[in-house]
Amino acid sequence: MTATPQTMTAIGIKEPGGPEALAPESRPVPQPGPGEVLVRVAAAGVNRPDVMQRKGLYPPPPGASDIPGLEIAGQVVAVGEGATRYRVGDRICGLVSGGGYAEYCPVHESNALPIPDGVSMVEAAAIPETFFTVWTNVFERGRLKSGETFMVHGGTSGIGTTAIMLAKAFGATVIATAGSDEKCEACRKLGADVAINYKTQDFVAECKAATGKKGVDVILDMVGGDYIAKNYEAAAVEGRIVQIAFQSSSKTQIDFMRLMLKRLTHTGSTLRSRSPAEKAAIADQLVEKVWPLVTSGQVRPVIHKTFPLAEAAQAHALMETSQHIGKIVLTVE
Amino acid sequence: MTATPQTMTAIGIKEPGGPEALAPESRPVPQPGPGEVLVRVAAAGVNRPDVMQRKGLYPPPPGASDIPGLEIAGQVVAVGEGATRYRVGDRICGLVSGGGYAEYCPVHESNALPIPDGVSMVEAAAIPETFFTVWTNVFERGRLKSGETFMVHGGTSGIGTTAIMLAKAFGATVIATAGSDEKCEACRKLGADVAINYKTQDFVAECKAATGKKGVDVILDMVGGDYIAKNYEAAAVEGRIVQIAFQSSSKTQIDFMRLMLKRLTHTGSTLRSRSPAEKAAIADQLVEKVWPLVTSGQVRPVIHKTFPLAEAAQAHALMETSQHIGKIVLTVE
Repeated sequence: MTATPQTMTAIGIKEPGGPEALAPESRPVPQPGPGEVLVRVAAAGVNRPDVMQRKGLYPPPPGASDIPGLEIAGQVVAVGEGATRYRVGDRICGLVSGGGYAEYCPVHESNALPIPDGVSMVEAAAIPETFFTVWTNVFERGRLKSGETFMVHGGTSGIGTTAIMLAKAFGATVIATAGSDEKCEACRKLGADVAINYKTQDFVAECKAATGKKGVDVILDMVGGDYIAKNYEAAAVEGRIVQIAFQSSSKTQIDFMRLMLKRLTHTGSTLRSRSPAEKAAIADQLVEKVWPLVTSGQVRPVIHKTFPLAEAAQAHALMETSQHIGKIVLTVE
Repeated sequence: MTATPQTMTAIGIKEPGGPEALAPESRPVPQPGPGEVLVRVAAAGVNRPDVMQRKGLYPPPPGASDIPGLEIAGQVVAVGEGATRYRVGDRICGLVSGGGYAEYCPVHESNALPIPDGVSMVEAAAIPETFFTVWTNVFERGRLKSGETFMVHGGTSGIGTTAIMLAKAFGATVIATAGSDEKCEACRKLGADVAINYKTQDFVAECKAATGKKGVDVILDMVGGDYIAKNYEAAAVEGRIVQIAFQSSSKTQIDFMRLMLKRLTHTGSTLRSRSPAEKAAIADQLVEKVWPLVTSGQVRPVIHKTFPLAEAAQAHALMETSQHIGKIVLTVE
């Protein structure tokens, strides 16, 4: 292991715009703050919020790096004051509030997880954002239980593939929506019991048919717009609908009568703005409940494609085509 | 105690319309079904759903009596097959799915509660509908905890007065909205820490001011319409909004971005359509958690006015003026 240099290559956003706004630039190597470790990044996951940030629509929270990137995997190269969980040389992955598209990135030790044996750096970098998101929204907030029915929209996205695998692993009947027959087939291969092509099928009718008219117990939605009224319709009595984004629109005309009469719960959350302590609580749950499934190989992130760090623009261009199935990951070195 | 007659006086709805649609008529005395007891009604509470039913807007659920009235107090005069909790002569109050405006009314024993010593029949008849509703929506569904802030709209209604007293008794800081300074004063007398005259004040701004900008943890709303967006604004991070009616409208244009960013939970329920088993579970909680407060006198229903059964029309007319503070109760005999 060589000494940590003074400067590094990172991907900056020249000014808000298209994928071409992303370009490598030289930055000072960050220092790990209290409770943090510095990671020499081997791989960094690409996520929808990075695209939003690049477009200027999702500014980093106060105190966060302006470099995009919300999840990393790599080796610990330095340990900050008071950080005790990891040592130099440890292989970890973790959730960061920015700065992942870089050769070095600090992460709070409580938001980092040890990489299980047999899991590659690319796979590990594809885990944090979607696993934290799915765990806290589907299992904590949505209270999905074994034997219930779960639906995720966009089943082939990073969130979608993770949600299908985890919901299935925890005993739910899984319904996924996707935009092509090929993507529906991919959802079924990941374990979805029912896959609905939303371009040719009515997902409300298909949900009713798949559940003997009972409806779906938990719905994970990142679409919004007219999906919200349809989710209320597709949900079972006492159903829970968890909103994690609005790829369509957050504004819509809605009749809340159905929410009251069916005793629905509509909630939602975003991950990035949560405090390190809140993220740490999710990380602890992941280690306890989900890490055994990753270690055994029962659950592994789906990797669509990797790009070298310098080609972050091409990675974003691919994500914006929505043709990927699973995660897009940047590799470093 | 005399033998139960064959016929009784009950209030029928001649045809959907104004208060004058209610008139006394002769009906057969009902028999108690399995698990039910027959009550000689001493007093019956009047509720908003009765008004909706009279107008033809809220049909009784399948199997329910067409006679209005959702809560009664009186003496047990007969015990149905398999009913074991009460004996002839016991003083009970209970929740029914209809039939309360009558001299006799059957109630499922699991939805009945013993009347504590020192509580009158009129007071007891004013308890079930609002206490069941507030308990299940504010404490179960809304998870209101001691030390949190609670807001109820319509603080002087039957629901409102009960919600103020129970939330206060369980350690919450209580905010109530009402439509006049006189009603605001009544809310404060019942224990509300803050009362907001919604005709002259902006309840969102007042909530922020009262909570040091933090917002309200649990909101009980029966208004709907443009109150829904305002509730989202008035709520704290992780706030819960529970919808129990839509006196304005159930349809509105809404921006769900705030629900997601503040991690709100919007839910709701109606009581009447719940199964006897579900109502029984609420009754059990009431006996355990709330009955001691009623027995000690710390919590008592607020009675605005009583009318003889034959004057049910006048009772409805009063309710529709919305000038009452607390419950309106019909008395029998």
